[in-house]
Amino acid sequence: MQFSELISTLKSGEAGLVNYKLASNPKIIRGASIEKALLNEISFIEKNNSLASELNQSKLSAVLIPDDKELRTKVEEKNIAWAILKDPKLGFAEVLELLNPIQKPSPTIHNSSVIGNNVEIGKNISIGPNTFIGNNCIIGDNTIIHPGVVIYDNVVIQECNELHANCVIHPGTFIGKNCVIHSNAVIGSEGFGFVPTSKGWRKMPQTGVVIVQDNVEVGCNTTIDRPAVGETLIGSGTKIDNLVQIGHGVSVGKGCAMAAQVGIAGGAVIGDSVILAGQVGVGNRVKVGDRVIASSKCGIHADIEPGQVISGFPAISNRLWLRCSANFKKLPEIAKAIRKLNLE
Amino acid sequence: MQFSELISTLKSGEAGLVNYKLASNPKIIRGASIEKALLNEISFIEKNNSLASELNQSKLSAVLIPDDKELRTKVEEKNIAWAILKDPKLGFAEVLELLNPIQKPSPTIHNSSVIGNNVEIGKNISIGPNTFIGNNCIIGDNTIIHPGVVIYDNVVIQECNELHANCVIHPGTFIGKNCVIHSNAVIGSEGFGFVPTSKGWRKMPQTGVVIVQDNVEVGCNTTIDRPAVGETLIGSGTKIDNLVQIGHGVSVGKGCAMAAQVGIAGGAVIGDSVILAGQVGVGNRVKVGDRVIASSKCGIHADIEPGQVISGFPAISNRLWLRCSANFKKLPEIAKAIRKLNLE
Amino acid sequence: MQFSELISTLKSGEAGLVNYKLASNPKIIRGASIEKALLNEISFIEKNNSLASELNQSKLSAVLIPDDKELRTKVEEKNIAWAILKDPKLGFAEVLELLNPIQKPSPTIHNSSVIGNNVEIGKNISIGPNTFIGNNCIIGDNTIIHPGVVIYDNVVIQECNELHANCVIHPGTFIGKNCVIHSNAVIGSEGFGFVPTSKGWRKMPQTGVVIVQDNVEVGCNTTIDRPAVGETLIGSGTKIDNLVQIGHGVSVGKGCAMAAQVGIAGGAVIGDSVILAGQVGVGNRVKVGDRVIASSKCGIHADIEPGQVISGFPAISNRLWLRCSANFKKLPEIAKAIRKLNLE
Repeated sequence: MQFSELISTLKSGEAGLVNYKLASNPKIIRGASIEKALLNEISFIEKNNSLASELNQSKLSAVLIPDDKELRTKVEEKNIAWAILKDPKLGFAEVLELLNPIQKPSPTIHNSSVIGNNVEIGKNISIGPNTFIGNNCIIGDNTIIHPGVVIYDNVVIQECNELHANCVIHPGTFIGKNCVIHSNAVIGSEGFGFVPTSKGWRKMPQTGVVIVQDNVEVGCNTTIDRPAVGETLIGSGTKIDNLVQIGHGVSVGKGCAMAAQVGIAGGAVIGDSVILAGQVGVGNRVKVGDRVIASSKCGIHADIEPGQVISGFPAISNRLWLRCSANFKKLPEIAKAIRKLNLE
Repeated sequence: MQFSELISTLKSGEAGLVNYKLASNPKIIRGASIEKALLNEISFIEKNNSLASELNQSKLSAVLIPDDKELRTKVEEKNIAWAILKDPKLGFAEVLELLNPIQKPSPTIHNSSVIGNNVEIGKNISIGPNTFIGNNCIIGDNTIIHPGVVIYDNVVIQECNELHANCVIHPGTFIGKNCVIHSNAVIGSEGFGFVPTSKGWRKMPQTGVVIVQDNVEVGCNTTIDRPAVGETLIGSGTKIDNLVQIGHGVSVGKGCAMAAQVGIAGGAVIGDSVILAGQVGVGNRVKVGDRVIASSKCGIHADIEPGQVISGFPAISNRLWLRCSANFKKLPEIAKAIRKLNLE
Repeated sequence: MQFSELISTLKSGEAGLVNYKLASNPKIIRGASIEKALLNEISFIEKNNSLASELNQSKLSAVLIPDDKELRTKVEEKNIAWAILKDPKLGFAEVLELLNPIQKPSPTIHNSSVIGNNVEIGKNISIGPNTFIGNNCIIGDNTIIHPGVVIYDNVVIQECNELHANCVIHPGTFIGKNCVIHSNAVIGSEGFGFVPTSKGWRKMPQTGVVIVQDNVEVGCNTTIDRPAVGETLIGSGTKIDNLVQIGHGVSVGKGCAMAAQVGIAGGAVIGDSVILAGQVGVGNRVKVGDRVIASSKCGIHADIEPGQVISGFPAISNRLWLRCSANFKKLPEIAKAIRKLNLE
């Protein structure tokens, strides 16, 4: 594809094309990172990116840059094709999508799939080999079900979803539109609820359901449990990485992002636009306000006000935590000083 | 179902029915949480539950309460059906079970399942589509094997077990009675054992087996490894949540509960009735005594005496840890005070 | 198998046979741990192993020991068969391998497997039931694909690999020779990359691939993501335990070992021979030098020089961390002392 074709896409995109130069209008075959890009490859640089210096040595044919004089001078000197964008990273996403059209399996129902009674199957659907769909399910138009997927009874999956290989959807789950469920994820499994009795743990029946709204991603090997009563809710536009645990009865707002290995205990309420970094834990029934950002490994045991940036365990403000952590290293000296005082 | 039918069940149950009032003997269709319950729904309140105040606004038709004067007055005033129970939560479990009878798949062996040689299959068994059972396995009566399950050779699965979709059971594993293995769990996989050599890591053959006793639950995507020699043991009545790692040669006692994302390293010995909260880690060969409770994210590196309540990393007593954590926030001030001292 | 046969193997092995005594040349049927070994079982003792004292009571028939006078005297007194080895643990691995020959499924392609177009299948390959292999894949000689495995399009799997049940390999993945991919692992799934826009998170297309070099193990339920551009790399001889997350664009060197539940964020660069203990986290784009050892639950946020032994969060030197942790427990006293100072 010529660079000029990419420019046409960027013009109609959302990344804010400010200016560009076709130069030799090079052929672009793929995207690459700035430090590894070769001939016929395109890359991007974000504002204040430390990798900008890599541009000098790079053999790339085209680059997307922010509106920055120094960078513009550099690319002009290299005599390569360039475009200035308000959001070069977003532009790069648009370009990558153009260069790598998604190859969807052709809409067929493989003859090795096993489909229960009273299942409504929409139009233009691909159901892969060795899949299972239980009774009374609804599968919306344009949905792709990859090999090995298991869908229990009474599941509703709306339009334009992609369910990757070997994921499992348990009874009563509702999945909205445009969701991606990654491989080996499990949605709607029985919550971990037990009542202590004289004879040991007795299972609290988990009679609720999981509701996944539109535009959600659920990562590989991530688990989302259904509750004893009511629902576990994942709000629209929320993106969940791999190996995340969402306990029974949790409510997650819209537009959140959760990195890998986050764990959210039962009944917690996560607001909108919350960002949880890797390995964060949220305790039972804790409320996390809108737009909270929790740094990695943070342990959230108490309610957090909206907009807070938090760290540590138990979680405190990120600014305070940074200062505390810096002083943690001085504990041996501090203890020594205290001992000295006591001796005197 | 009328409320009077639920009362019949509670009378013969274990939750300790103390008193009740049928009121209008309402029809009850499902359970709900106290703050969301509507007409024809039943809920429960635990002793000293902060949600008791929600009762005033609730539109529910019936409620299970503890023996508490104030609560009783409230429900009498609302003129709804109620029951007083020694353990209202346990009563709610009994009621939910009655309202939501488990729907078991009919006992058939799906023709797409592949079953090896010399497999003993009991009575009243359901083997779902696209399953695989290796040679020399024994599958006990009343067991349900959901779609996509893979069972390797020489596995014994006793009576009344449920194996959820796409879980994998490796060679030589023994599973007792009344267990539930959740979706995508892996039991009996090779332990992570390597010997350093001049040519790199060499695999220590993992020739042992995993033994899962009766009434155990193993969560979704949880992994239980087999050891080099001997056995990895999960004691009867132990409940394991999602995404838990049980290393090779670990011995877990009876009646334990492990929350999501707990990790137990090889050779650790966990006593009876131990409770490990989310994301707890237990080190190699560490011994954790009976009835120990470890709070979330706790890191257990050294043996713990029975009955301790522990927190933090390295784990210390929960009481001490709470005080230390509270003072962690003061470290910047403490360091400042120390600096001041040195200057003077 | 007689003990003399084991000695023949040890002679040609790498564990460094120094001396041995056949005694009654007992029949050895299996390996066992020193504290549990019975008649006709063999065990081993490592140098300075605290379990050496167990030898007195042990009923075992043979033992592998280091070159240690006291131990030799003990085994001579017990009149059992023994061998002295430079590396008894490595010798035990060799013996276990001999006693437990790996039973490979016979090389057949099960008729329930579904194989795409233009797939090259090598010699002596086993493809189990209910498997799926996409278009344009290459499967090397002597590879075993267990039941339920799903391989997407354009995947190359070289010789002598074992793919355990229900694991999933995504498009474009390359797997070298002699690798083991454990059950339910997912390799090559879309990285977790999103660009914030006014309409919410927009997916950055993940057009790169995962490359797994020779002799790698990938644990059960472990996930390795592909990047937006370029590759995610797992170096040869690296061993990865269960439930590990390797983010998109991560580069892992040769001969590393990662314990269960480790999480490595996108773009991190891990050197050669790095050891990460359980639940360690590595931040975005962080560089971890060769031979670094990180103890369990360590959080690595900044680059680490080669050869460091680190602990804690944020990670500091293990020696310093041990001292800091010891003093953490004294924080209440320290705070009290400081308060007293201020009052005076």
